[in-house]
Amino acid sequence: MNVGGVRVGGVAAGVKPGKEPDMAVIIADRAVPTAAVFTSSRSAAAPVVVSRAHVADGFIRAVVVNSGCANAGTGESGILDARRMAAAAAGAIGCSPDEVIVCSTGPIGPPLPMEAVMPGIGAAVTAATAAGWESAAAAIMTTDTHPKLVESTMTVDGGTVRTVGMAKGAGMVRPDMATMLAFLVTDALVEPSVLRRVLGEVVDRTFNSMNIDGCQSTNDTVVAMATGASSTEVPPDRLVGLLEGPATRLAEMIVRDAEGSTRLVTVRVVGAADAEQARHVGLAITDSDLVRASFHGGDPNWGRIFGAVGVSGLEFAQSSFAVAYEDTWIARDGRQVPFDRLGLRSRLVGDFQIDVVVGDGPGEARILSCDLSPDYVRFNAEPS
Amino acid sequence: MNVGGVRVGGVAAGVKPGKEPDMAVIIADRAVPTAAVFTSSRSAAAPVVVSRAHVADGFIRAVVVNSGCANAGTGESGILDARRMAAAAAGAIGCSPDEVIVCSTGPIGPPLPMEAVMPGIGAAVTAATAAGWESAAAAIMTTDTHPKLVESTMTVDGGTVRTVGMAKGAGMVRPDMATMLAFLVTDALVEPSVLRRVLGEVVDRTFNSMNIDGCQSTNDTVVAMATGASSTEVPPDRLVGLLEGPATRLAEMIVRDAEGSTRLVTVRVVGAADAEQARHVGLAITDSDLVRASFHGGDPNWGRIFGAVGVSGLEFAQSSFAVAYEDTWIARDGRQVPFDRLGLRSRLVGDFQIDVVVGDGPGEARILSCDLSPDYVRFNAEPS
Repeated sequence: MNVGGVRVGGVAAGVKPGKEPDMAVIIADRAVPTAAVFTSSRSAAAPVVVSRAHVADGFIRAVVVNSGCANAGTGESGILDARRMAAAAAGAIGCSPDEVIVCSTGPIGPPLPMEAVMPGIGAAVTAATAAGWESAAAAIMTTDTHPKLVESTMTVDGGTVRTVGMAKGAGMVRPDMATMLAFLVTDALVEPSVLRRVLGEVVDRTFNSMNIDGCQSTNDTVVAMATGASSTEVPPDRLVGLLEGPATRLAEMIVRDAEGSTRLVTVRVVGAADAEQARHVGLAITDSDLVRASFHGGDPNWGRIFGAVGVSGLEFAQSSFAVAYEDTWIARDGRQVPFDRLGLRSRLVGDFQIDVVVGDGPGEARILSCDLSPDYVRFNAEPS
Repeated sequence: MNVGGVRVGGVAAGVKPGKEPDMAVIIADRAVPTAAVFTSSRSAAAPVVVSRAHVADGFIRAVVVNSGCANAGTGESGILDARRMAAAAAGAIGCSPDEVIVCSTGPIGPPLPMEAVMPGIGAAVTAATAAGWESAAAAIMTTDTHPKLVESTMTVDGGTVRTVGMAKGAGMVRPDMATMLAFLVTDALVEPSVLRRVLGEVVDRTFNSMNIDGCQSTNDTVVAMATGASSTEVPPDRLVGLLEGPATRLAEMIVRDAEGSTRLVTVRVVGAADAEQARHVGLAITDSDLVRASFHGGDPNWGRIFGAVGVSGLEFAQSSFAVAYEDTWIARDGRQVPFDRLGLRSRLVGDFQIDVVVGDGPGEARILSCDLSPDYVRFNAEPS
């Protein structure tokens, strides 16, 4: 697995207590068009604050990522530590610190162990190769059970464009590990302003349309870099597909690997005023502990969905509400309709899909979610 | 236990499958000043829609409550059923149907079994006595493990005023049982408009300041009736205390009896712009599955609270953030401070209190919450 114009790598720096890999870098051959989407949390971590400024001009040379510590809730000294990470990477690569995006993921609160971080960055830069994606994907993991990597190719006007994506998920065996990070690198030729606009769109439909536990992190970051190494120009309308394919697959991998989850549930909301409103309603439905507990039991409990939509802020007519599980309609016109409960339940043993109608508008959205299980609670109740 | 000017009672009408009591009435000697607060859900149940209209003029003669079925998600025929309940009670009592408040609690979706409901209302009216509070409190239970009743007396200008309150909780052994109902009856002499204003204030600080699972019900209802039987006039400033005492105790009883919960956790938020903002932040903190899972483990995991405040919508400076568990400050100025973790954990074995500082404003609020346990998920995953 590789994509032209970057080398990547991951090493064990000693941020995590064991000898697991915990420091990754993605280094482009030069500063390349890059867009990023960050958490909207007011409790945003130091690396988010620093990276948001660095990516503002649309060009980035490298990304440096540590796992094992989120550098969140660390005040002014956390900001200085994030800047020192950027400077260390820049020094080892030979670029300006403001050409470096910094990401951290792990427990909120503790300061970064800089005595491990600083030499680790140098080691990761040295280790980086064109084929280093596996080691990088392993080094960004926290409670993930496996690395998450995807690749895709697309032909545009006779040229072939490659894209590689990697992500870490939102499973939480140990406390505080709430961070979602994803990195997409394509060798397409793209304008920075186009990359930014398209990434925003794609993230809304992929990473921002998944819900594991309703808890947004302090560190969520999605980065897309376009190295241009293919020399193939990709027009905006094709760029959506180029990024959305890998992003969709990474989002699904994250939800499947969610802590304690036993099944993936897709909630499709239709009939909202627009896509944004549909997405909001879908997220509100899957925020509900009661709804996700019913997913765990494979219970077609439409009343809980009805209840969750009622307090989502959506102004809807109860008579326009309908719900189907696996294409079996069990509520229409705001009330239950006869259905074969045992037959339906026998089809809710693995992954399943729910359709929710909230009106007759054109807005629809698809939310990837999973069940809330006793294991999720057990793991996350465990003190650090 | 009794309060002048009303008779109450509860019977088994057969709405629930077993022989448990499931129909309760509260009947005042005449139409008396009454205020009510209902769920703000757009999925409000039929009895909420009907009762909201009936109480609008500030006077009510009786309340009729069934458990075992929420009459929610039942469309137009649900509205008709709620009106038939009011009419049946009115017929048995000898008053107008619009002098009756109707409440239902139980699973969302199924229609009311009117063949059981209608004779049950007559039986409950017949059974009502001045001393019937215990049987009424038992008849409104769903997954509650015990009836919830409180009484209080207050001396005002030499006169003694009695207040009795009863409630059912938000524990959820069986699916859909999300409803919170509370009824306060005082024999004080009060103006309807004053009663309405004071009840709103009191509910904000009591029933609207508790959070078990972040799931608002389709049927939540709080009713306060003032029979005037004591002939003692209570001025507005004393009325707050008169209602807030019993309401606070009922709210605490509800949280303690929450499904699967093992401890009561009080979250005090200070430093917000006003009390409403503080309450909003406190509810957002206790909405978080990760925060409530950490309550279960007795883990002073301030990072999760920081994360939840960050996405609550509150505009706050990270540097103003501080958290204490049981009066031990573990974060100040937006970052962790040294503390005796083992010593603190040894004090988080039962109920505990958390203080959260979000700024230097005058607004504060106190939220009663509980832990999210594996048992909560297990019970609510069980198909109906």
